[in-house]
Amino acid sequence: MKLLRYGPPGQEKPALVAPDGSLRDLSQHVHDIDPRTLERKVLDELRALDPAGLPLVEGEVRIGAPVAAIGKLVCVGLNYADHAKESNLPVPSEPVLFMKATSAICGPNDQVIIPRGAQKTDWEVELGIVIGRKAQYVEREQALEHIAGYCIVNDVSERAFQHERGGSWDKGKGCDTFAPIGPWLVTRDEIADVRDLDLRLSVNDEVRQRGNTRTMIFAIDEIVSYISQFMTLNPGDVICTGTPPGVGAGMQPPQFLKPGDRMRLSISGLGEQCQDVVAWQR
Amino acid sequence: MKLLRYGPPGQEKPALVAPDGSLRDLSQHVHDIDPRTLERKVLDELRALDPAGLPLVEGEVRIGAPVAAIGKLVCVGLNYADHAKESNLPVPSEPVLFMKATSAICGPNDQVIIPRGAQKTDWEVELGIVIGRKAQYVEREQALEHIAGYCIVNDVSERAFQHERGGSWDKGKGCDTFAPIGPWLVTRDEIADVRDLDLRLSVNDEVRQRGNTRTMIFAIDEIVSYISQFMTLNPGDVICTGTPPGVGAGMQPPQFLKPGDRMRLSISGLGEQCQDVVAWQR
Repeated sequence: MKLLRYGPPGQEKPALVAPDGSLRDLSQHVHDIDPRTLERKVLDELRALDPAGLPLVEGEVRIGAPVAAIGKLVCVGLNYADHAKESNLPVPSEPVLFMKATSAICGPNDQVIIPRGAQKTDWEVELGIVIGRKAQYVEREQALEHIAGYCIVNDVSERAFQHERGGSWDKGKGCDTFAPIGPWLVTRDEIADVRDLDLRLSVNDEVRQRGNTRTMIFAIDEIVSYISQFMTLNPGDVICTGTPPGVGAGMQPPQFLKPGDRMRLSISGLGEQCQDVVAWQR
Repeated sequence: MKLLRYGPPGQEKPALVAPDGSLRDLSQHVHDIDPRTLERKVLDELRALDPAGLPLVEGEVRIGAPVAAIGKLVCVGLNYADHAKESNLPVPSEPVLFMKATSAICGPNDQVIIPRGAQKTDWEVELGIVIGRKAQYVEREQALEHIAGYCIVNDVSERAFQHERGGSWDKGKGCDTFAPIGPWLVTRDEIADVRDLDLRLSVNDEVRQRGNTRTMIFAIDEIVSYISQFMTLNPGDVICTGTPPGVGAGMQPPQFLKPGDRMRLSISGLGEQCQDVVAWQR
């Protein structure tokens, strides 16, 4: 099942993607795609609906992030060996974690805003995990049961803020619009093998990142189990699982985003994102 | 005005502290103390009420965090010169930022749980800033207008997770119960001089931390302005402004929390916290 939220920012309505590709409104069945909707029982109820019987969403609509009220965005850094290498950083012996501010969340096709004073704004296509069931000290063997589904996240990063301004990476990770999520939350049952998903990101139609989840250092179940040793993961929390090689900071010479650029991201089975880059304006 | 939330976790009701020290229920006036309640207009309406005419909260009640639906916990590290020294870290040239997971938030007198496998759980009394109005690229001169009020935060920290497990500090900062907040949100008008507040923390009645906000490296208005250059601060966001000297990691030899310990925290005008430390148990 592919769940999504459509409509103006802050007023999104729940919907699903029907087998024929049309969007079908779910407002009569759930208030929103929020942490409560991610319970297995509710997802099963939605799955049992006949999409053809649901109201058609007509016309061009904005897509929002596929989950409302995301409690936290926990990120794994350097989770692809090749990306660690291009960043001139050692392959970590255990997952590197950092947080993205939830105020950075936006829709998958919303504009990405270069912050005031930023010079090194960069892209990072990532597989996102959406938690469906509370995970606290979960063993690796049980970890997948706590996952509602998957989505695309662009872990937009300002490298100067991240590395040259002191303190943790968080300063360059949580700027407004730095977390486009979606278009869909694809439920776990629809992804045959999460260890074999192609990731791809282009800037102005030039492919910059190309990778596959099989080259992740820490696997999905390991990541969920690991994070749950440090903090409880709640329904609606999103984990960004790291980016494959090809970020702008790793290019020779480095290249960064500028106003007018267009990013396109895709992951097998999870759809596509497209963001226009703009300068911040008051 | 001193606002608070009382009742079992997840079912807290809004209240205020009357001049006679009694708690008065606000449920007939606001749904909760949440981001919407922090608008100046709503706070003015609450301020205009006659506390004596409000229902008395009777008996012993649990106090929750004074604000519901806190969107993010942004923290300033090493903001007291003496604390930077005891941590063997240089005085920062600009604020060091990191994030605490909001799932760590608990009431001011709730138990603090030592995570499984933790050996170096430490205390940090801090002045918390509660944002009342959206702050985005705010100048220092206007920064205070975006503050609804202040509160105590215990920035509980697991030093091994923070420093010895790779990646950012976030791993040792966001464990469950690592952010006791309250007891009150004290509105800004009640604090005559935020640059002259005494902070104090004791463990088992031995004073460990004693400080005053006048020795902060970066002042309150500077902090709000600074963070707002990197991310929008929204009503209900809480900023932890750093801790004065006296943390366990800085003692000779270092001392850390163990089950059975009792922490007491106070800041001038902001009340007191008291937490019993327990080991994690499934």
